[in-house]
Amino acid sequence: MKTVKIGLLGLGTVGGGVYKLIERQKSEMVSKTGADVEIAKILVHNRNKKREGIDESLLTDQWKDIIEDKEIDIVVEVMGGIEPAKTIITEALKAGKNVVTANKDLLAVCGEDLLEIAAAHHVDLMFEAAVAGGIPIMRPLRQCLAGNEITEVTGIVNGTTNYILTKMFELGMSFEEALAKATELGYAEADPTADIEGLDAGRKVAIMATSAFHSKVVFDDVHIEGITKITAQDIKYAKEFDSVIKLIGIARNTESGIEACVYPMLLSSEHPLASVRNSFNAVFVHGDAVDDVMFYGRGAGEFPTASAVMGDIIDVIRDMVNGCTGRISNTCYRELPVKKCRDIRSKFFLRMQVENRPGVLASIASVFGEHKVSINKVVQKIITDGMAEVVIVTDAVKEYHMQDAQEELLRMPIVKEISSVIREY
Amino acid sequence: MKTVKIGLLGLGTVGGGVYKLIERQKSEMVSKTGADVEIAKILVHNRNKKREGIDESLLTDQWKDIIEDKEIDIVVEVMGGIEPAKTIITEALKAGKNVVTANKDLLAVCGEDLLEIAAAHHVDLMFEAAVAGGIPIMRPLRQCLAGNEITEVTGIVNGTTNYILTKMFELGMSFEEALAKATELGYAEADPTADIEGLDAGRKVAIMATSAFHSKVVFDDVHIEGITKITAQDIKYAKEFDSVIKLIGIARNTESGIEACVYPMLLSSEHPLASVRNSFNAVFVHGDAVDDVMFYGRGAGEFPTASAVMGDIIDVIRDMVNGCTGRISNTCYRELPVKKCRDIRSKFFLRMQVENRPGVLASIASVFGEHKVSINKVVQKIITDGMAEVVIVTDAVKEYHMQDAQEELLRMPIVKEISSVIREY
Repeated sequence: MKTVKIGLLGLGTVGGGVYKLIERQKSEMVSKTGADVEIAKILVHNRNKKREGIDESLLTDQWKDIIEDKEIDIVVEVMGGIEPAKTIITEALKAGKNVVTANKDLLAVCGEDLLEIAAAHHVDLMFEAAVAGGIPIMRPLRQCLAGNEITEVTGIVNGTTNYILTKMFELGMSFEEALAKATELGYAEADPTADIEGLDAGRKVAIMATSAFHSKVVFDDVHIEGITKITAQDIKYAKEFDSVIKLIGIARNTESGIEACVYPMLLSSEHPLASVRNSFNAVFVHGDAVDDVMFYGRGAGEFPTASAVMGDIIDVIRDMVNGCTGRISNTCYRELPVKKCRDIRSKFFLRMQVENRPGVLASIASVFGEHKVSINKVVQKIITDGMAEVVIVTDAVKEYHMQDAQEELLRMPIVKEISSVIREY
Repeated sequence: MKTVKIGLLGLGTVGGGVYKLIERQKSEMVSKTGADVEIAKILVHNRNKKREGIDESLLTDQWKDIIEDKEIDIVVEVMGGIEPAKTIITEALKAGKNVVTANKDLLAVCGEDLLEIAAAHHVDLMFEAAVAGGIPIMRPLRQCLAGNEITEVTGIVNGTTNYILTKMFELGMSFEEALAKATELGYAEADPTADIEGLDAGRKVAIMATSAFHSKVVFDDVHIEGITKITAQDIKYAKEFDSVIKLIGIARNTESGIEACVYPMLLSSEHPLASVRNSFNAVFVHGDAVDDVMFYGRGAGEFPTASAVMGDIIDVIRDMVNGCTGRISNTCYRELPVKKCRDIRSKFFLRMQVENRPGVLASIASVFGEHKVSINKVVQKIITDGMAEVVIVTDAVKEYHMQDAQEELLRMPIVKEISSVIREY
């Protein structure tokens, strides 16, 4: 009976979870995979830091110790960031080691290149943990749903922003209050930029789109807007429209190219994603055969993420035992164009402050008309004698038409402010 | 480049879907798997029936034609029922053929035996389509979540009953009216027994529990109750308690053994399963690492089920191309006891008709107390001068205590009827 040796890169929250989970699962591994498993080395920044429950003799601060260790079969990378992770993973694959990674930053930039290197060396590169934490989504996309032409992958894939938006929606908090609460509870990091500006979600969209559509989509292809501009007033209108506001990552495979975006959206409260609350994540997939399917669970955290890493480790060991590492590698066999943002069609919710006098609505409507924006719904509320708040929901329209209409509106003396522009799912 | 040949057993709704999906996916198969695929033979009852779009030269009414065809690599069984499916699948596995099946009836009875035969012959036996149609659930349980100690699998795994209960809940229909509607729309079969009595859901619970807990659970181990006794009045109370009533398949791995049950349950409207409407299915899983995770989608139908079959076919072909068929087979490495129904603890909702006079509630409460049933909530409604409806919700209590309490209640002259007994999730 072989013992599979693991080199663990990183011992932060996720790394600690992986360490503990491997310990917990050790006695079951032969039954599950046909081989034993042990952690042989752990890469850390600081070898001298006290770490409770960790065998210190395993620690190293030199990544080459791991790559050059011929006994190590699987490298588990949970350090995050582009470098040195990229170099280490590349060297590991070239050295014939299988790699399990949770690194969305890296995969969103050069996932396909790494899969190519893995393929060339007949080793596994698995990354279930890189998207939506513990929720099985990469394997469903790459295996269970592989018989589908997938046309849409839409998800709530950032727990921090979903927590914030839930508190704003349910408790009437402002964005700032909800962010403070999220920080206090550890849902938001000290620098929350990557979460609240949608960058984290954008990386996951790129990775999911690539697997779902069999065509390379990278982080730079994703059009991203965060949630910092969402106000309590927007949430109030969402409720009035029987909708919620969620930060949605959306990837569509259309006849004119792939659309990949992240932005806050109004979503009907009937939609399955609308009931995803707090820090939970969910991914909604539409395929030509399966129709709609959704995956829901914890998108982050020590053990949920370690669960995904562990599932990958078990799968790699099964591949090793059966002599078939590299069994599924790069499935990007198409080269589909990715649409420019300006050409993507969305429905829009516009909230604006205008002068309250006869003819104002007609003037606004005619601007939309000129720019091929057709209006689906108008709500006007008188705020003071002289001012009114107008909310307009449009039909689906290309971004650039909307942009042009907005610019013209802002040149009109009757329009004092466009307070929000939110897309509708 | 090899062409993988498929023998298709059955050309009903699902078989037709598989046929069409293979045709649709043909041009992508080399890219997805490394091999081409074609249907070589199709087993049907009646070769002379007209079938549009099907190549008639492929049809046979002799299953041995398929087993004895050395060129056939994968047998796809979508005929259903125990025999002759069991014999054919057994022979196929023994002949070294991989098998993909959607047959829950068979797997719920002898799935582990078949997996053993597959293991002995180093071939794949895959069955994603047997549970919850298009929803990826078996692969997530057997792979993605394999690093977890799974303690609970709870699902809405029958679309017919979920449709009926949704109509009763949302439109106030009676059971009979909702069943008639389901039959009219094709959601219920001419003989709806297997669905409305919970048998279909019970089979799926047995299959999921076996994979989730690594221990054999068969159909006979599952305690089953259908939805035929649910009334509009029960639904009314559910609403009052901010709950819904759903037919729930529930498997728990407890310290004192596995619990496997199917029954209608009151479920808080906050629970993710509560918002699963109409014919949709969903499976909720709890693991020690992943925490809560849910899978949602279409549990039946031509193409959703074919989607699951196709995912399995693609996976088998990848195994063939990589020389690793039989890579994951029988994962039942434990022998856990399955609990008798009488020992399972549940919360109960009891609705009864009693005489309306002083002291009645006290007498009823004391009967519960004598049988170790503690009461969580009581609602009493006066119906006529002489009669009242009493609803009691209990804390978790063993079935046999509840049974005994009910028997004693029915012997009391003041208790005219126990109208409903529904478990609470």
